[in-house]
Amino acid sequence: MAATPGSSAPSARTTVRRKADRGAYDPDLVRSVVDEALICHVGFVHEGSPVVLPTIHARVGDTLYLHGAASNRMLRTLRDGAEACVTCTVVDGLVLARSVFHHSMNYRSVVVFGPARAVDDRAEKLAALEALVERIVAGRWSDARHPTEAELRQTLVVALPLTEASAKVRTGPPIDDEEDYRLPVWAGVIPLEIRRLDPVPDLPPR
Amino acid sequence: MAATPGSSAPSARTTVRRKADRGAYDPDLVRSVVDEALICHVGFVHEGSPVVLPTIHARVGDTLYLHGAASNRMLRTLRDGAEACVTCTVVDGLVLARSVFHHSMNYRSVVVFGPARAVDDRAEKLAALEALVERIVAGRWSDARHPTEAELRQTLVVALPLTEASAKVRTGPPIDDEEDYRLPVWAGVIPLEIRRLDPVPDLPPR
Repeated sequence: MAATPGSSAPSARTTVRRKADRGAYDPDLVRSVVDEALICHVGFVHEGSPVVLPTIHARVGDTLYLHGAASNRMLRTLRDGAEACVTCTVVDGLVLARSVFHHSMNYRSVVVFGPARAVDDRAEKLAALEALVERIVAGRWSDARHPTEAELRQTLVVALPLTEASAKVRTGPPIDDEEDYRLPVWAGVIPLEIRRLDPVPDLPPR
Repeated sequence: MAATPGSSAPSARTTVRRKADRGAYDPDLVRSVVDEALICHVGFVHEGSPVVLPTIHARVGDTLYLHGAASNRMLRTLRDGAEACVTCTVVDGLVLARSVFHHSMNYRSVVVFGPARAVDDRAEKLAALEALVERIVAGRWSDARHPTEAELRQTLVVALPLTEASAKVRTGPPIDDEEDYRLPVWAGVIPLEIRRLDPVPDLPPR
């Protein structure tokens, strides 16, 4: 049974196992983590071995899109109906406890399972590419030159529904053992943030 | 044939396929990416399906260590000799080209393949845990309370050699089609940086 967004019924695969209190099937949470993670890590099986590769993704509604060159092995594997696992992770902070044992991280992650499908419909493909480039900088789709027909043919887009997805979240301070709170050890959280630095213009060749 | 650090002979699995000029088997590059990526994404196969989960890692020499609760499904799967793929990714910047098609990202990633092994030796286990906590804040191992014997028993550590590993790197400005350089479109790189913000102390309960 798949967990559809809006449903609270996780599938066997999306049932969060460790620290079950951190598991969540709230579709808004799933969408927000997918959107905030700039890249995802895509898992697929090749000749019996797991392979995990990073790539950028975009979400339109409850569909997650990946793209790349038409010759890309990962995308071709997904296009051909192989099972995939796409994981989006945002690291929010380092959690320093009084004991080594209770050190942790604050994070939000989403795991999406399921076979993907190739996106052949021209309008859907363009919408996916627009969503992908808009994630880099909002407004970029109207600023930059649009894909030609040849470029579209060279680009493979695959779609994965956010149907079988689950989020896992840790927030807040360290949780130490009762007797450790009296130890003279600094404890707390070091928040992490991804910052965009000053743009470096590319000067056209003369 | 596995690519040992120091060797330039990639295995079939670590041969970088797309954009082969971005592939690299330089052991120093592999180590530096593994060290700089705060977390990794671990892929394994569970009942025929790929599963990708984020976790923190540490490197000691040419061995990568993962840890977690002794009941952790991922670690138990790895301990039992399953094939694993561990991917470390650092995103350095957004690459804005004049055409949508040539947008890209600057990044460094490392993919490590191979079966892992459980770390049962007490000294190796402690050294791995020290490396893991030292990555969070240097000096933390001497500041915080060390693990008790019970905590050590509750912690599973697995090791993966960096033998079958490859790096992939993109750097530099966008590469546009010749005829696009004259377009009045801003192009360049937006560098990204992970920043540590002001620590938030945890006040012990009264």
